[in-house]
Amino acid sequence: MCLYKVLRAAVALRPGRDELVTDTANFPTDRFLVDSVGAELGLTVRWIEGPDDVAAVAGPRTAAVVLSHVDYRSAAIADLAGITRVVHERGGLTVWDLCHSVGSIPVALDADGADFAVGCTYKFLNAGPGAPAFLYVNARHHEAFGQPITGWMGAADTFGMAERYVPAPGIRRALSGTPPVLGMVGVQEGVALLAEAGIERVRAKAVALGRWVLDLADEWLVPLGFTVASPREDARRGGHVTLRHPDAERLSRVLIDNGVLIDFRRPDGIRIGLSPLTTGFTEVRAAMERIRELAG
Amino acid sequence: MCLYKVLRAAVALRPGRDELVTDTANFPTDRFLVDSVGAELGLTVRWIEGPDDVAAVAGPRTAAVVLSHVDYRSAAIADLAGITRVVHERGGLTVWDLCHSVGSIPVALDADGADFAVGCTYKFLNAGPGAPAFLYVNARHHEAFGQPITGWMGAADTFGMAERYVPAPGIRRALSGTPPVLGMVGVQEGVALLAEAGIERVRAKAVALGRWVLDLADEWLVPLGFTVASPREDARRGGHVTLRHPDAERLSRVLIDNGVLIDFRRPDGIRIGLSPLTTGFTEVRAAMERIRELAG
Repeated sequence: MCLYKVLRAAVALRPGRDELVTDTANFPTDRFLVDSVGAELGLTVRWIEGPDDVAAVAGPRTAAVVLSHVDYRSAAIADLAGITRVVHERGGLTVWDLCHSVGSIPVALDADGADFAVGCTYKFLNAGPGAPAFLYVNARHHEAFGQPITGWMGAADTFGMAERYVPAPGIRRALSGTPPVLGMVGVQEGVALLAEAGIERVRAKAVALGRWVLDLADEWLVPLGFTVASPREDARRGGHVTLRHPDAERLSRVLIDNGVLIDFRRPDGIRIGLSPLTTGFTEVRAAMERIRELAG
Repeated sequence: MCLYKVLRAAVALRPGRDELVTDTANFPTDRFLVDSVGAELGLTVRWIEGPDDVAAVAGPRTAAVVLSHVDYRSAAIADLAGITRVVHERGGLTVWDLCHSVGSIPVALDADGADFAVGCTYKFLNAGPGAPAFLYVNARHHEAFGQPITGWMGAADTFGMAERYVPAPGIRRALSGTPPVLGMVGVQEGVALLAEAGIERVRAKAVALGRWVLDLADEWLVPLGFTVASPREDARRGGHVTLRHPDAERLSRVLIDNGVLIDFRRPDGIRIGLSPLTTGFTEVRAAMERIRELAG
């Protein structure tokens, strides 16, 4: 819902522009929503293969570019600041999906000039399965920000029960109905834990865990037919590592049945999640050993 | 979000019809959303004063009629079956808001032929503050049901990560992103409690509690300047009772400060919530005594 809201708001801020841009590697919900919003508003969707192609397609018809900050499969980090700059030069707006970066790598939306962002709290923010999503609107868009899912909590005077909707000033206008209080308790706790650890330390451990997986993969798994799908350069890799294997789907089931809780990602990816607050080095080593045994 | 989804779906099912109908007494979120959807789709909103006026305005231009089953202020129960029949005769669709009826009075959406419904679970379903909302789509609309907030959980093959969105068969297509699991635990517990008690017994106690409030109000409060804003006929009154008083706003604050947790509803309503699973007769009598003292 957050992505739908900011995407509709972004398009409304760029009247006359009739194209949306996203990449084919983006997460399904993002792609589906770009398609849906394009269809309902009569916009053309320009599909690119990855964030590097933005410069080639963004132009005077581009209303908004929707990208994930960290690729959910490869863990490649997109150049948020650089791409935002290019999109702005062409007069468009950026919508960043932070699901795989928030709580994992430092994000500086204000400093980088991002227009909109959305994210989930159930991955690196540790707020529990299906925890509430969030959205970000750059302060320069607050007063012009409008969204279609109006409701009493986003109205200027919530308990005024006014005849017509008048949006609240500032970011509160992004709210719709009553927020999920129980779910937000999880967010509160998860965010507090992260704040205590500090995002820089979390990032440092994530890099070390990723490096550990890559080193063990090179030594043990590449000889068994695995390849590495994630960037090898630490600065370009997010908080997980994806390995590829021709028999990944079957192997993923075997791994899960044996207590190694990876994610299978079509067509041949085995994604190894490495949440630094809850994942240790010895446990990663044990998992890699188990993969070696079971795939051997 | 649920109301936005079903309202958009309803309009899409009645192409060529350019009017939405709702009443000025409807809950703010409902009215705001009817206005928003009307504005985004270029539809006219026909405002009526209450459910009784549907027959006078529903016609060949009516796409959907949006009403609350139980009025959030007066507790008046709308004739769900009768109004749905009238709207269908004119070729339109009905969207019912069950927030103040689900878990409080028996609802028979299938039997009554309703098209769509939405509701919250944090009132009479006892699922906690801001608990997840729900929506209902009559089975006859399942295959044609489309909604704008597409996402992976509503797709036919969630983990297929397909190139394009293909909706799941049946009601699952109404899902968008990842559902709020923690919040749904509250729903599970609240619904289980209700199922154990049985909706008919809950309704019987709600009627008795409402009658108790009315009797005490007539004896103690009407002489102090209060009037009764809820239907006196048990069959036409939902699970709460609203009293009116010229000084209701100030008095409400005094009551809350003194432990009588009512809701103030503009302009002059004091809403007395009577959730049968958690509210007892002696406690209602104590609250009414306190109101008499503090308003005296």
